[in-house]
Amino acid sequence: MIVVMKCGCSQDDIEAVIKRIKESGLKEHISRGVERTIIGILGQNLLDFQGTLQLLPGVEEVIPVSKPYKLASREFHPQNTIVKVNDVVIGGDEIVTMAGPCAVESEEQILATAREVKADGVNILRGGAFKPSTSPYHFRGLGEKGLKMLAKAREETGMPVITEVMTPNDVKLVASYVDILQIGARNMQNFMLLDEVGKTRKPVMLKRGLSSTIQEWLLAAEYILAQGNEQLILCERGIRTFETSTRNTMDISAIPLIKKVSHLPVIADPSHATGKWYLVAPLALAAIAAGADGLMIEVHPDPGLALKDGIQSLTFENFRRFMSQLIPITQATGRKLATSGTKVKS
Amino acid sequence: MIVVMKCGCSQDDIEAVIKRIKESGLKEHISRGVERTIIGILGQNLLDFQGTLQLLPGVEEVIPVSKPYKLASREFHPQNTIVKVNDVVIGGDEIVTMAGPCAVESEEQILATAREVKADGVNILRGGAFKPSTSPYHFRGLGEKGLKMLAKAREETGMPVITEVMTPNDVKLVASYVDILQIGARNMQNFMLLDEVGKTRKPVMLKRGLSSTIQEWLLAAEYILAQGNEQLILCERGIRTFETSTRNTMDISAIPLIKKVSHLPVIADPSHATGKWYLVAPLALAAIAAGADGLMIEVHPDPGLALKDGIQSLTFENFRRFMSQLIPITQATGRKLATSGTKVKS
Amino acid sequence: MIVVMKCGCSQDDIEAVIKRIKESGLKEHISRGVERTIIGILGQNLLDFQGTLQLLPGVEEVIPVSKPYKLASREFHPQNTIVKVNDVVIGGDEIVTMAGPCAVESEEQILATAREVKADGVNILRGGAFKPSTSPYHFRGLGEKGLKMLAKAREETGMPVITEVMTPNDVKLVASYVDILQIGARNMQNFMLLDEVGKTRKPVMLKRGLSSTIQEWLLAAEYILAQGNEQLILCERGIRTFETSTRNTMDISAIPLIKKVSHLPVIADPSHATGKWYLVAPLALAAIAAGADGLMIEVHPDPGLALKDGIQSLTFENFRRFMSQLIPITQATGRKLATSGTKVKS
Amino acid sequence: MIVVMKCGCSQDDIEAVIKRIKESGLKEHISRGVERTIIGILGQNLLDFQGTLQLLPGVEEVIPVSKPYKLASREFHPQNTIVKVNDVVIGGDEIVTMAGPCAVESEEQILATAREVKADGVNILRGGAFKPSTSPYHFRGLGEKGLKMLAKAREETGMPVITEVMTPNDVKLVASYVDILQIGARNMQNFMLLDEVGKTRKPVMLKRGLSSTIQEWLLAAEYILAQGNEQLILCERGIRTFETSTRNTMDISAIPLIKKVSHLPVIADPSHATGKWYLVAPLALAAIAAGADGLMIEVHPDPGLALKDGIQSLTFENFRRFMSQLIPITQATGRKLATSGTKVKS
Repeated sequence: MIVVMKCGCSQDDIEAVIKRIKESGLKEHISRGVERTIIGILGQNLLDFQGTLQLLPGVEEVIPVSKPYKLASREFHPQNTIVKVNDVVIGGDEIVTMAGPCAVESEEQILATAREVKADGVNILRGGAFKPSTSPYHFRGLGEKGLKMLAKAREETGMPVITEVMTPNDVKLVASYVDILQIGARNMQNFMLLDEVGKTRKPVMLKRGLSSTIQEWLLAAEYILAQGNEQLILCERGIRTFETSTRNTMDISAIPLIKKVSHLPVIADPSHATGKWYLVAPLALAAIAAGADGLMIEVHPDPGLALKDGIQSLTFENFRRFMSQLIPITQATGRKLATSGTKVKS
Repeated sequence: MIVVMKCGCSQDDIEAVIKRIKESGLKEHISRGVERTIIGILGQNLLDFQGTLQLLPGVEEVIPVSKPYKLASREFHPQNTIVKVNDVVIGGDEIVTMAGPCAVESEEQILATAREVKADGVNILRGGAFKPSTSPYHFRGLGEKGLKMLAKAREETGMPVITEVMTPNDVKLVASYVDILQIGARNMQNFMLLDEVGKTRKPVMLKRGLSSTIQEWLLAAEYILAQGNEQLILCERGIRTFETSTRNTMDISAIPLIKKVSHLPVIADPSHATGKWYLVAPLALAAIAAGADGLMIEVHPDPGLALKDGIQSLTFENFRRFMSQLIPITQATGRKLATSGTKVKS
Repeated sequence: MIVVMKCGCSQDDIEAVIKRIKESGLKEHISRGVERTIIGILGQNLLDFQGTLQLLPGVEEVIPVSKPYKLASREFHPQNTIVKVNDVVIGGDEIVTMAGPCAVESEEQILATAREVKADGVNILRGGAFKPSTSPYHFRGLGEKGLKMLAKAREETGMPVITEVMTPNDVKLVASYVDILQIGARNMQNFMLLDEVGKTRKPVMLKRGLSSTIQEWLLAAEYILAQGNEQLILCERGIRTFETSTRNTMDISAIPLIKKVSHLPVIADPSHATGKWYLVAPLALAAIAAGADGLMIEVHPDPGLALKDGIQSLTFENFRRFMSQLIPITQATGRKLATSGTKVKS
Repeated sequence: MIVVMKCGCSQDDIEAVIKRIKESGLKEHISRGVERTIIGILGQNLLDFQGTLQLLPGVEEVIPVSKPYKLASREFHPQNTIVKVNDVVIGGDEIVTMAGPCAVESEEQILATAREVKADGVNILRGGAFKPSTSPYHFRGLGEKGLKMLAKAREETGMPVITEVMTPNDVKLVASYVDILQIGARNMQNFMLLDEVGKTRKPVMLKRGLSSTIQEWLLAAEYILAQGNEQLILCERGIRTFETSTRNTMDISAIPLIKKVSHLPVIADPSHATGKWYLVAPLALAAIAAGADGLMIEVHPDPGLALKDGIQSLTFENFRRFMSQLIPITQATGRKLATSGTKVKS
């Protein structure tokens, strides 16, 4: 950590800072420049110390130097994390696809979609049973009934299943039905929920919050890792900006940046990021070209009748066309599509 | 709701839209312009219908007309909501102040602060027992021990107490100790938590989410109101923007705008909005000048030693100076400071 | 345009709105719903009419329906615009590359870079002679001396040249030296400059403003088109968001969205968008996968010694590696790299 | 400036950094910590040096320490700048008001407004002759004819006049008619325009750019100051955020923050910031409570017929009511309204 003193601060100010540093068992390093004095602090566990120093007289600014996350950092864990869900491998050489409806609406709907996407080469089935909804008057999901339908679809198709869990109390229930626990964007900083999924040994997919910086996202990941659950996947799904012609702005640059600073796999969700079905394919291809480890895409048998987010869902026909575009882009990056996800969970 | 057809869409496209509207038991109204045809839809409960129509061929755009919230709207509830906490009245003519430390750290700290702010004319004591923290390695609050200290401070001073509740499971516990349940910015769309505090009959203060529009905020309020809890207060605490020289950007315009479209009381929290202690007083005064019903301000006996957010906390001396500035501004708006909050809860 | 009346407005309010519409020679269409009355306005040139109606008593909202731009819209110009710069074709089937240093620094620097990027297959040479700079104390470009160096590089290599023009007065000068006039992000709404380049018949590349919506960007394009200059290219270069780990957030979704609503070619500039050299290649590939018509990339013989933006510039070696990645991605989208740009301008 | 080395960088990396620093005639200061080595650089004119170092091997981050602006900084100019426009004093103890229509539309309109606002106690008349407009099809101002009308209103009422200048070429013309040159938000980084108004000795009011940080705003001010023009006023007029229910989000916290870090006077423009006439008064009062030195407010004889921005303009009646609210708020802050602005310019 670095303490920048004000121009023209007094010698007493400088000594008071040094005293406070020494009292905390840390060591200081002083650089006196023409205009300013700068004091470096050596040592660890400086996290809560910044505010303290910032309030001392003569202090202009306190600048942290170390990254605030450790377990999520590639610096301390250079190899890629590989998450295994049955025989599906996420974060390795192969590109993984997850697809399905925004919300589970009925057995027919989820089964029809599961069969279709499996036939198209998808590895993991998605479908929401507990749905966050901006309005209390909109559809909020089928709850446990929806989980049972997902389990049935898994049984029939052999595909692992991912679904969102919204509150700590539901973690056990949801974990008993599905293969990957999804933390939604609105819950990225629901810290008690992060603790709870961190205590399980189920794979977790953590979506980026609507207005979260990449650093905050990695700190949220750190919560889960700190509880001992290393089966963690990140998912970029767009951030909130001033632009209103798309639902959110997909931050494609987050993908290669995360791959550089962290060892965790990164999935892209162009359906929520764009909110428009006709932008899903180009943004999905862009994410793969930028280095994403996989995709999560919304598919619905009849988007015009969907209870939720039909506007961003692909029809079966559009999804098939998209998958045929995905293959050459994937190959052009030197990777290939994973072909697993078809064996029944043992 | 209004359906805008594309220029040059076919008559069949128009008829397909009309058919879908009629099938849903609604009535259409057609306007044919030089360039475009526009179809108005009359009726209620159109909420989930927008996506459906948007996907029909020839449809350019579907524009909702009614506001999506009802219970929070002044249109359907013209009189101001008045929230009563013991003898403190929020949302009436008088300005209410809430103050205290960011986090409860010890009995001495909370008692000293409570005595000070009471002597300064504060109506309600604040203090966090469960603290959201961006990093898992930072202080996360004393939990129930903190609640007990708050209760003790209330007992001694007679001031009602407000504290944050972070998860549905804790609602009962927190409600048994304090007078107002606070929903923090990160939990504004924690819908299960909103349901849960909506089921209590305790006053609730709902902070605006970091990246929430005013409409989303009122829809979050609608969740609580829809459960039957009308003792609801809103709190503006800054939104996330590109500006980095303040922690957040306080959206003062939200205050008069909310007062216009909603009947709910609005409190301002300049401590979290600015993140800098020397900006707290000017922004607090600004909020009152703009029509806020009250303030929530962080005060700490020794901000330099605070376990959390010391950088935005006022010292006792600074707080006293601020209260002396608040009186004339309040009077200039034709209101006065509430003097209640000193009787022991019965 | 649609006028939404307030719930419970009076019949007089409605009639006042109708009267104002008729006075303007327009025709109204009334829909009376259970809660609200809605009045559609048919006719053209409604642009300045919105504010007027919004202030009448009983009016809740006035919603424009037509898009505010015409010449830039695909609705009125369905075929792609093709911009020709000597024998380089922008907006056709082939992907065009522009590369060069941020700023022209010396004859050696621009000539060395021009030779390198030409050998790598680049079609157009970039280089700034007039440079916008946030600080008055930073390098602001070599001015006309820089233009002469660009002309010399063009002469030697035969590549067309693009450079920024910053003020209406310089348009003639800059146009006399280069092949494409670039309008920078900070000048996207410098309307007098847009008028001026619109009056030339030189190709123009219009960068998206840092905080411009896609609609505002197309309206800026409309300024140039309205002056009769149809040789117009758009360039996405990132928008300002709350995220600070990249210089800007590249809005890849803008690329397919523009291609849908407009006929103008779209180029992507990942160097300015990310501000970090190691993110340039992944974002460039992403832009092509999403449908961009070309790329603009910063290359410098020795980025560590660059007078401007070295941090986002590729070395020759990194640029060569990138070009070898670009070929398979381009092919995977069914397009190929343009090979033109090597003939001397006649 | 501080160079943070990567964990585990080599001794050679460190020495290469030191070598580069010494070659530039600067002095280094090394601090070796447990995890990292940090190198402080002492000396001045480090501005363009950051990029260079950032690209050296083993360097994690380069952090600037000094503020990049000097002339605009209170550190180097502790006393408040006072701008005098005839007998109107801006930046002193008294609050200054500027009012008038968004655009000059006719002699009758500007004269009627000038008489009204003068009678209400306003010090300076505003009115746009050159108007930036998002669409090329909207009203763009009367140009020099408008300037003449402003001059006539000044002659009749004796009020000094402020108007916008949009391009370097117009600076002389505009300066010959009016008393304060306004730089609009869209031109805050039109650097050649900043240079040009900096070369005059006319007072300048520099509006904050739509998406400018406070630091960028002060650097734009630095352009003008660096040309020797110290008669400079800043104007906060709202920034672009995700919130769409107001035109922009007024950043009230910028006002006390600027007053702390800079010596320049700060004016608030709530009309453009909110875009809604009924929010103008509360935000104007808030700005004064937060410490603004004055206000700029749009007033129109008949906002419903205004050619531009009628929706945010106050009627004469609403403006009179506002001025009566402004007096007590001003007094409550310990200041008073200026009464000057009525003498004819000599």
